Amino acid sequence: MKQSPHRRFNPLNGKWILVSPHRSQRPWLGQAEAVSVPETVAHDPDCYLCAGNERANGTINPEYSGVYVFENDFAALLPEGNAAAAENERLFRSESASGTCRVICFSPDHGKSLAQLECDEIAAIVDVWAEQTEALAQNHAWVQVFENKGSVMGCSNPHPHGQVWATRHVPDEIATEADNQVAYFKAHGAPLLLDLVSQEKYKKERVVVDTEYWMAIVPWWASWPFELLLLPKFAVSSLQQLERAQRNDLAVALQEITIRYDNLFQCSFPYSMGWHGAPFDGGDYPGVQLHAHFYPPLLRSASVRKFMVGFEMLAEAQRDLTPEQAAAALRQTSQVHFLAGDQ
Amino acid sequence: MKQSPHRRFNPLNGKWILVSPHRSQRPWLGQAEAVSVPETVAHDPDCYLCAGNERANGTINPEYSGVYVFENDFAALLPEGNAAAAENERLFRSESASGTCRVICFSPDHGKSLAQLECDEIAAIVDVWAEQTEALAQNHAWVQVFENKGSVMGCSNPHPHGQVWATRHVPDEIATEADNQVAYFKAHGAPLLLDLVSQEKYKKERVVVDTEYWMAIVPWWASWPFELLLLPKFAVSSLQQLERAQRNDLAVALQEITIRYDNLFQCSFPYSMGWHGAPFDGGDYPGVQLHAHFYPPLLRSASVRKFMVGFEMLAEAQRDLTPEQAAAALRQTSQVHFLAGDQ
Ligand SMILES: O=P(O)(O)O[C@H]1O[C@H](CO)[C@@H](O)[C@H](O)[C@H]1O
Ligand SMILES: O=P(O)(O)O[C@H]1O[C@H](CO)[C@@H](O)[C@H](O)[C@H]1O
Repeated sequence: MKQSPHRRFNPLNGKWILVSPHRSQRPWLGQAEAVSVPETVAHDPDCYLCAGNERANGTINPEYSGVYVFENDFAALLPEGNAAAAENERLFRSESASGTCRVICFSPDHGKSLAQLECDEIAAIVDVWAEQTEALAQNHAWVQVFENKGSVMGCSNPHPHGQVWATRHVPDEIATEADNQVAYFKAHGAPLLLDLVSQEKYKKERVVVDTEYWMAIVPWWASWPFELLLLPKFAVSSLQQLERAQRNDLAVALQEITIRYDNLFQCSFPYSMGWHGAPFDGGDYPGVQLHAHFYPPLLRSASVRKFMVGFEMLAEAQRDLTPEQAAAALRQTSQVHFLAGDQ
Repeated sequence: MKQSPHRRFNPLNGKWILVSPHRSQRPWLGQAEAVSVPETVAHDPDCYLCAGNERANGTINPEYSGVYVFENDFAALLPEGNAAAAENERLFRSESASGTCRVICFSPDHGKSLAQLECDEIAAIVDVWAEQTEALAQNHAWVQVFENKGSVMGCSNPHPHGQVWATRHVPDEIATEADNQVAYFKAHGAPLLLDLVSQEKYKKERVVVDTEYWMAIVPWWASWPFELLLLPKFAVSSLQQLERAQRNDLAVALQEITIRYDNLFQCSFPYSMGWHGAPFDGGDYPGVQLHAHFYPPLLRSASVRKFMVGFEMLAEAQRDLTPEQAAAALRQTSQVHFLAGDQ
């Protein structure tokens, strides 16, 4: 059955995905992406994120070691004082938006993405994600921790870095996922994403990474070809609640995910990834679980991507290979980075 | 107020958009897109859409003149016989999906996009859109007419063409827009999109094209930088209901939109566009209006695009210039195509 076109339902955001497995045979005559090659230098004098270099606004980065956080020089959100007033005409509704945007340099080493860092270095990033979330959650309703990786994902600098955007409102997708998880919890008495972990553990076909505390699956409802959902195997609603052993093991899972990604098409695998969980607006969110989404655009090789355009923008998401095929391909990759010997 | 960060609400799909006008000053150091230059040859021997040429599956195109429609050789949807069975576990829901995918060549002239065709040639395309919708609506719940233009929008061939994907189910976005329009109609006794036309006519600041029967605006809630919403000024729920004068005038509006787009950054302006309206599943859809969306990716020049990644994928859509600024920029373009003198 899985080779015929069908639709699958995403219970987290309530959307359907059209799956057309037979379509992966179509020849690709469209745009080829520039292959994202891992950086090789440890320090680039022209990089505005490297230690000691000057940023666009004239600030000089300190000679940092480890993880380095600074306020985004071109923040999409500004502190409260600048907020616009709300308008409330029937067809023209708006409300003010304010918040804080920061950049998180993962390492002073310009050439090392998550896939090439050691587990203790990744655990230090997890700690900063947790610290930033804890600090910003004091006066923001949501703290979005994320990473855009690769020029095809709009990332303007290959230096390994992520971002955190904290907002005084709860953004749409966060609210929708929370609503659906709360409704599931009320209906079934267990968190949706913990039920999913036990089902996937039993079914096996979509599991890619399985560590002591974490599991990464290609979800049943994945829209992006090699999309992953990274799930804790225990009850937890946000990053700052993670304990030491869970953080260290998360570093192991993140390393395995990013190494398998890089190995799939032997490139520095592009993606947007980020963390979801319970909002910090003081609401009650029973059954809402912490989790990370990985949304990678590549489809068939380091230079052929999936375009979410046309039908996908106007009607509904569509994918060409099944989530089970994607999971099998990722499981077949080596757990040793393809460049490991060269380093 | 409009220069401070704020959120705006989209009453068609119920989503919010984060607007960060001050952010348009940020320098762009990321990926540059290949500039899409209009094609100059009328016939390309290597183009699988040109008249008389061979397609990937070995079929030879007829020596067509005018508009030419054929079944998509790599259809994402197949006829009913191939449909997969539904699965209905709690976390693993699926249903069968079947349908018809066709390609619509706009003109035998390889070098002429909508912006460079005459009004009577565009009116002939409108007629084919209407005919295809009418025919496919007999046994499909939805008929999605759309065009992906430009390699940056995943279009694999510059030959001017669109597509039609007809589905036996009503896709998510169509169902959501229909629900919201029906709810508005029940609450306020008038179609949402006709109310919008009269408000925008009065406010003027977001109007880009205004013909006898049609109006194109940058909607208050636009997510893409130069997004347009093309609205009929009269009650109509689908393409096949359009009368001759309304079709001819639609050709005028489409020509003006696409010429202004090309002139904005002096390139063959990429976009995905498509038509929405009332579904054909036999339901009652009072107040649901026909309309077209144009979703173009370019932000600041022919080579700098907006990336909907990271925060946008994980939290909510974000834009850097206001819809009012975008409308003003489009109004300032010439109504004569920048290449008109050369032809
Ligand atoms: O059918 P095409 O033009 O080969 O393909 C293009 O349009 C389709 C419909 O919007 C998308 O699913 C594809 O990702 C895109 O590359
Ligand atoms: O902040 P950056 O890395 O310059 O910009 C990138 O990430 C942002 C947040 O996802 C997006 O809004 C931008 O479109 C993207 O280019």
